[in-house]
Amino acid sequence: MKKIINNPSHIVEEMIEGMLLTHGDILERVEGSNVLKRKHLKKGKVALVSGGGSGHEPAHAGFVGEGMLDAAVCGEVFTSPTPDQILEAIKAVDTGAGVLLIIKNYSGDVMNFEMAQELAEMEGIEVESVIIDDDIAVSKDDTAGRRGVAGTIMMHKILGAMAEEGASLKEMKTYAESIRPRIKTLGLALSGATVPEVGKPGFVLEDDEIEYGVGIHGEPGYRKEKLQPSSILAKELISQLRQEMNWQTGDEYGVFVNGLGNTPKMELYVFMRDVLLLLDQEGLNVSYHLVEEYMTAIDMAGVSLTLMHMDDKMKNYLKAASYTAAWKERL
Amino acid sequence: MKKIINNPSHIVEEMIEGMLLTHGDILERVEGSNVLKRKHLKKGKVALVSGGGSGHEPAHAGFVGEGMLDAAVCGEVFTSPTPDQILEAIKAVDTGAGVLLIIKNYSGDVMNFEMAQELAEMEGIEVESVIIDDDIAVSKDDTAGRRGVAGTIMMHKILGAMAEEGASLKEMKTYAESIRPRIKTLGLALSGATVPEVGKPGFVLEDDEIEYGVGIHGEPGYRKEKLQPSSILAKELISQLRQEMNWQTGDEYGVFVNGLGNTPKMELYVFMRDVLLLLDQEGLNVSYHLVEEYMTAIDMAGVSLTLMHMDDKMKNYLKAASYTAAWKERL
Repeated sequence: MKKIINNPSHIVEEMIEGMLLTHGDILERVEGSNVLKRKHLKKGKVALVSGGGSGHEPAHAGFVGEGMLDAAVCGEVFTSPTPDQILEAIKAVDTGAGVLLIIKNYSGDVMNFEMAQELAEMEGIEVESVIIDDDIAVSKDDTAGRRGVAGTIMMHKILGAMAEEGASLKEMKTYAESIRPRIKTLGLALSGATVPEVGKPGFVLEDDEIEYGVGIHGEPGYRKEKLQPSSILAKELISQLRQEMNWQTGDEYGVFVNGLGNTPKMELYVFMRDVLLLLDQEGLNVSYHLVEEYMTAIDMAGVSLTLMHMDDKMKNYLKAASYTAAWKERL
Repeated sequence: MKKIINNPSHIVEEMIEGMLLTHGDILERVEGSNVLKRKHLKKGKVALVSGGGSGHEPAHAGFVGEGMLDAAVCGEVFTSPTPDQILEAIKAVDTGAGVLLIIKNYSGDVMNFEMAQELAEMEGIEVESVIIDDDIAVSKDDTAGRRGVAGTIMMHKILGAMAEEGASLKEMKTYAESIRPRIKTLGLALSGATVPEVGKPGFVLEDDEIEYGVGIHGEPGYRKEKLQPSSILAKELISQLRQEMNWQTGDEYGVFVNGLGNTPKMELYVFMRDVLLLLDQEGLNVSYHLVEEYMTAIDMAGVSLTLMHMDDKMKNYLKAASYTAAWKERL
């Protein structure tokens, strides 16, 4: 393992310290916790809380700030944060309008966030939650359901903008559930990720091999194959997404190409080009484009493709003002 | 070589197409060239042009837009663009106030940009240039001089803000030369970079080995060593930079930790923390912080540290409004 770190068991703490020192104008720590909150809360706004295991940076703390999240809870690497930490976050950011939890669908996260929700409700805080399960690599019939991956960040942005507009908690919950099925993701990996405390990759691919459908913690995908040109990789992801989303010519879509960690921007833009050429052949009207490394898997090489079937509000929310460590829009 | 690309010899063209499709609100192509220019030029403003070999994304085209560059010329991977392409860029963005070229100090870039400058001047366009040579890994006495690396991006931002304020070309040239010696960089690599058309890394390090002072094209550094904890790596870079910059207790500095491509954000923040702890011990007053992957070397793993001895304008310029693909500030 070759990483720029100190003691692997201090990595989350040291990363948090680095983020706080770097983004002191945006973030502050809830004392005694691994919760990073928005420094200047907006009173009367529904507060948004997300989080999960670390190792997906900039997710989620990089999205705390104006127009997006109010707090992110940083668990250990690839490990859900505990209910008490999540409760701290909820209490720290509620200003009376209630709190919406944005949870990636992993059993540990769901259990701990829901327990925190109950504890907060017992303290009189109004809480709703939305569980993101955008990863179509997993069968719909899987007992644990589908994983939450890069689409989660789109939910941070869309719901963050809606909250900023003054929507009520109930309106937000309803809207979140209405758009959840409109956002789907599929990824592919060129390499595994190395958890610092483990010291070796979670899986190893051959020198000329890729794997479709790998999860952001290295969960096995649905097929290994020889590496193909970018345009062929794009075709596979799009044909899987099409089966799922069942689009019609002229439908309005948003496209988010996400790097999984060790993927040069050059490759992400080449892949985006290939995706857009194919979606053009499909007759889709692509009205929103994003190429970023927003939901990573430590040092995994690879890419995910998130498609969003736009409704009449999503595009405006995606382009709305925001100011966070990782996502800034005109403000 | 495992990359998400198509034909390696089409990679720059396809990347440019991907950037244009993704950032159509910010960028447009100068027809028939590999020049990406700001879509909405600001009349009467000094125009800023940079560029160089591709493979350093988001540099330089990711910094074209409001508050930064007016055009970037994209050469082949790690290869200087030709004088005619640079001339196209100059002609496309001059609105009468003249053009400032920001050139990284590599012999090919310097020769071709200066040739383009002469050609533009023959066509009656006023042109000045500033050559960035911030990489202290190279001896001051080296005949080719020091390389231009991550400090170049700081110059894009600082000078971009100054141009936006309405400074004249002469004022900009004078200011650029005055701050050039105040910005110094030193890097270290954990792995080499693979140029797509070559197909294998430019150099190979042992599994437990790093190299100090490697250049952004894989130019050899000044020492190979066993990998050390982040805090020790930070100490080495800082002690070299201190010898060079000769700071005094209380001096005001800006800090930019730059990822070289395949370096997870988690590591960059840990490294930033270690750098800031050490600079605090040095008694420096750090008033500006940045952690990004802005000047990469394709898929090289590693980091560079840029220190900026602030004058009374630099901080404001660094924080000034901008809106480019890769660097957005409040606007």
